[in-house]
Amino acid sequence: MKIAVLGAGSWGTTFAKVLGDAATGTDRAIMVWGRRAEVVQEINSSHRNSRYLADVALPESITASTDVTEVLHGAELVVLAVPAQSLRAQLHTWAPHVAPAAVVVSLMKGLEVGTDARMSQVIAEELTLPAEQIGVISGPNLALEIARQEPTASVVACAHAQTAAWIAAVCTPPYFRPYTNTDVVGVEIGGIVKNIIALAVGICDGKRMGDNTKASVITRGLAETTRLALALGGEAETMAGLAGLGDLVATCSSPLSRNRTAGRLLGEGLTLAQVGERMTQTAEGIKSGQAVHDLARQLGIEMPITEAVVAVLAGKLSIDELGPLLMSRDLKSEGEIQA
Amino acid sequence: MKIAVLGAGSWGTTFAKVLGDAATGTDRAIMVWGRRAEVVQEINSSHRNSRYLADVALPESITASTDVTEVLHGAELVVLAVPAQSLRAQLHTWAPHVAPAAVVVSLMKGLEVGTDARMSQVIAEELTLPAEQIGVISGPNLALEIARQEPTASVVACAHAQTAAWIAAVCTPPYFRPYTNTDVVGVEIGGIVKNIIALAVGICDGKRMGDNTKASVITRGLAETTRLALALGGEAETMAGLAGLGDLVATCSSPLSRNRTAGRLLGEGLTLAQVGERMTQTAEGIKSGQAVHDLARQLGIEMPITEAVVAVLAGKLSIDELGPLLMSRDLKSEGEIQA
Repeated sequence: MKIAVLGAGSWGTTFAKVLGDAATGTDRAIMVWGRRAEVVQEINSSHRNSRYLADVALPESITASTDVTEVLHGAELVVLAVPAQSLRAQLHTWAPHVAPAAVVVSLMKGLEVGTDARMSQVIAEELTLPAEQIGVISGPNLALEIARQEPTASVVACAHAQTAAWIAAVCTPPYFRPYTNTDVVGVEIGGIVKNIIALAVGICDGKRMGDNTKASVITRGLAETTRLALALGGEAETMAGLAGLGDLVATCSSPLSRNRTAGRLLGEGLTLAQVGERMTQTAEGIKSGQAVHDLARQLGIEMPITEAVVAVLAGKLSIDELGPLLMSRDLKSEGEIQA
Repeated sequence: MKIAVLGAGSWGTTFAKVLGDAATGTDRAIMVWGRRAEVVQEINSSHRNSRYLADVALPESITASTDVTEVLHGAELVVLAVPAQSLRAQLHTWAPHVAPAAVVVSLMKGLEVGTDARMSQVIAEELTLPAEQIGVISGPNLALEIARQEPTASVVACAHAQTAAWIAAVCTPPYFRPYTNTDVVGVEIGGIVKNIIALAVGICDGKRMGDNTKASVITRGLAETTRLALALGGEAETMAGLAGLGDLVATCSSPLSRNRTAGRLLGEGLTLAQVGERMTQTAEGIKSGQAVHDLARQLGIEMPITEAVVAVLAGKLSIDELGPLLMSRDLKSEGEIQA
């Protein structure tokens, strides 16, 4: 069995390790595509990706290449882990090399700016694939913890339950436990919006606000995420599960989260440009925020935290104005607030 | 207007401050009952409760006494903040002094061992009060953060919506924002079970498990809390709100949480007796755990995390066995797990 992983960042490389550790013996070849020659060379020569995963050792079943044709050739499973905003352009180039029967899985968490498309939608459009061949994986999955083999649960979603079960069976080493689900929309929306909520929680952190405040932002953040997911056809159960609540809590708790870190730096008074210079990897919430905001507005969904974060990122609201705004609502029943 | 606050621990004293700060001028007298003469004397002489709230200054409208008759005399609102397991015995003594028309509010988060009664049920039984006169307050409310006037939201629940609104109006200083709700069962169950889940998360912390694992425990913990609440007539919306998810996240995130701290010490290898010696205040989850477990068993509700924590506390499961147990379930769909 051959598996292609497109993207050699921290999550792509970690997931390649998950796939390698899930197979016993030599019955599986995992090939990683990377843009940078030095990263590819390090994976091939010393089974490391030190730029993203420090000294984590990768399984010997993993090789890497900068040649996407070679990586995709004969792959039954194609895993996509590239920056969300560049996916469409890259898939356009890669499409001729993807086997027609391949199952394509997205690890990406973003909404395309301009089209408001989810990653599974971009995949369906660019590869003209049916929903049965498209999966998404999301959950409380900080990559570095998984690379260190700390026990982690996740969700594999596909409209076709058997495909979800097949993908899950392929990526189950002892330390990584995927549950299956057919709610692709809910799983994707959970992963997209949590980056924006994590920016808000990070800003609270940077402003030295307490755990009471941050817990309220997380609670209301999940409520607005759920409203959006339901409007798009997702399910409330998904949002209360690992890909909704679980991912949100992990992201908002961990110093490893890029989005929370970006928020904290903003809260401490850095400009957006200064934050960009400090970060080695994309904080996707900064990019997807506007797209989520546009989508919510089209659907008539109230997302006050997203709206406030987008206003801060656009320079229309100061960080000092954000804090009170996150907590300010008239006294009313909680049901009304969440409705 | 006279308000009685029974209990001079950290939450009782902090809530007295909330009530004092919510009133302007001298139209409100708040009287706190405390068991310890030195605490009462310090509140009266220097407007401090340094045992629990360090150097936080209390409003001048607060006085204290060890004489419960004096404290309850003429009080329209009675706020109860004593240890959950001693409430019934204390109310039995106090009942003759509570005005028949008084509204009684519980700040307590525990289930009575032996009877499996919630605090609002103990109040109804011992004071023979109708549901319209009984309220509960719960949410992401770490007392010390509120005492420091950090922005905090909370939930006031009463079967009678107008009573809930009246209580909320009485306790709204600028830094404390109560929302109202009629789901007393849901609000109480959220506050009770979160202490047990916080013990589990604390144990994970003590064992140096990562944020992926802790986020999964929180997610599944809320799922089992919700199952119990629904079986008792509570509402799913409450569990997704501030008194469910919000309180759980705040408690599991904060180093100020007694239950999380107790769990962490257990995870680091201390015995239950050693943990008891280290803590100055009760970790209520240690006491309520068995009652919650018994109640779930009677109702046929699956609560695997509670079950595991209770087994650890009873010495029937070692801390080393707990970690893998929290993450171990067969590969199946997430819906099945949560159902």
